[in-house]
Amino acid sequence: MSNRSWIAVDWGTSNLRAWHVSATGAILDQAQSDRGMATLEHAGFETALLALITDWLPKDQVTSVIACGMVGARQGWIEAPYVAAPCPPPGMAQSVVAPVRDPRISLQILPGVMQNAPPDVMRGEETQIAGFLATEPQFDGVLCMPGTHTKWVRISAGEIVSFQTFMSGELFAILSQHSVLKHSVGTGWDRDAFAQAVSDGIARPQALAARLFALRAAGLLSGMSPDTARASLSGYLIGLELAGSRPYWLGQDVVVVGKTGLADNYAQALIDQGATARMIDADGITLAGLGRAHAADQQEADI
Amino acid sequence: MSNRSWIAVDWGTSNLRAWHVSATGAILDQAQSDRGMATLEHAGFETALLALITDWLPKDQVTSVIACGMVGARQGWIEAPYVAAPCPPPGMAQSVVAPVRDPRISLQILPGVMQNAPPDVMRGEETQIAGFLATEPQFDGVLCMPGTHTKWVRISAGEIVSFQTFMSGELFAILSQHSVLKHSVGTGWDRDAFAQAVSDGIARPQALAARLFALRAAGLLSGMSPDTARASLSGYLIGLELAGSRPYWLGQDVVVVGKTGLADNYAQALIDQGATARMIDADGITLAGLGRAHAADQQEADI
Repeated sequence: MSNRSWIAVDWGTSNLRAWHVSATGAILDQAQSDRGMATLEHAGFETALLALITDWLPKDQVTSVIACGMVGARQGWIEAPYVAAPCPPPGMAQSVVAPVRDPRISLQILPGVMQNAPPDVMRGEETQIAGFLATEPQFDGVLCMPGTHTKWVRISAGEIVSFQTFMSGELFAILSQHSVLKHSVGTGWDRDAFAQAVSDGIARPQALAARLFALRAAGLLSGMSPDTARASLSGYLIGLELAGSRPYWLGQDVVVVGKTGLADNYAQALIDQGATARMIDADGITLAGLGRAHAADQQEADI
Repeated sequence: MSNRSWIAVDWGTSNLRAWHVSATGAILDQAQSDRGMATLEHAGFETALLALITDWLPKDQVTSVIACGMVGARQGWIEAPYVAAPCPPPGMAQSVVAPVRDPRISLQILPGVMQNAPPDVMRGEETQIAGFLATEPQFDGVLCMPGTHTKWVRISAGEIVSFQTFMSGELFAILSQHSVLKHSVGTGWDRDAFAQAVSDGIARPQALAARLFALRAAGLLSGMSPDTARASLSGYLIGLELAGSRPYWLGQDVVVVGKTGLADNYAQALIDQGATARMIDADGITLAGLGRAHAADQQEADI
């Protein structure tokens, strides 16, 4: 097995994160920037990566870099074609070698996973799933992966069986920033209002667009606080999502990925609905997933 | 009755429109600009109005200007406090005189209508309703007023009985412009996809956030056309709204206000659901509503 350090990269739409990892798996250093896929032209990817990792690269030696996420999209560095679910999380055998100019690095990008019916895609989450399965290979249940595009993923026998993406996080962001609700929504939180809104959202999902305007009207007429409005907005959207994703979580062992406030809100909402939900750290499984790909590659090299 | 001409003004969030009307009700001229309420600071309203109407103003004489819409909001020229529903559409008795510097005009702003439970507000639509009732005073049914914030209004015995606003139009706009769907949504139309999406949206409103992402995925995976994606997005949102507004339209005589493509889409969707729906011209009833207010004012002056 190689005694060289390597570099793990999680390259999403908005952010770029890199870890310098020793041959034994210890994290030597980490760095991040806001040079996400959406901010970069084709020629900019290598520059953006080197800006983060150049200090970690020994001279006269090729360091292996393994990346996951939107960097492998059609608009990314190079397209890493989707693998079709049901499938195990893809690994190095399905990765794509990206063209690089700097002789100090070799870069492999892990592909995302697609589903034909209903049409759906993921890029990045599949590597988190690989990391999760590395520690819980017998898991049979559902991962809830909250974010801009929240994924619900059925896992069984080491495979991604099916999944569904909900745009609730992006709806929250654009409603808060670009709609008339920007005048109503604050930055704080109201736990009770959130719980009530989740319950309302599940009970009558069809009322969503009316409830959104009612938040604005309640601000004008009765001075609803901006914190209550924000928690209610989040609750309506997560309630709508839980109504739509019920087949995923009802009676299931649900693992919520992330320890952010958003993941906590999902876990709380699920528990309030009588579901079982536990939380795991997202960064940990991302790194574990990239590490599993690296280890598989090293075993291959050692044969 | 005065033999003076007067000026009707419809001043919304995004647009300002004015009509020069003769004492007998004939339209002498009209003008519009994009100086909507949202684009103006407090001091800018009079300038924006005079830029449109100054040519219509005789010297040494005061011309009456009657306005409705967001110009009477708290962030407008001067606040015209809401009248609470149930109520007849408010008229000149509830109007507010706006402070003006130019001695050639006197300006009255008609108030909007509020509702306490569920909290809701309108500004501008109440004047359209007044205009509609001027021609159909016995109407007993529902007005559907499509727009950025679509209103459903129950009318009976000349009163606004209750109403509900749905943010579907604004959701369509921000999803098209600010979400990941901006890559998927075109400018054309697909009538069949719209009808199917309305039907899907009514049947399973809780799937909204997943269906939105599926539009993106279908674009990536199967090359769904941008026109189909746009019509589907509109259909999902109008379907969600029709599911939520069902108590308003089921078994009712629905009048859809507007002759735009959007109003046509609402009417088509309602008819597909087995509802009765007819369309009326929005500009006509706006002007009729402002005219009714003006006429009432003149009668008052003549007494």
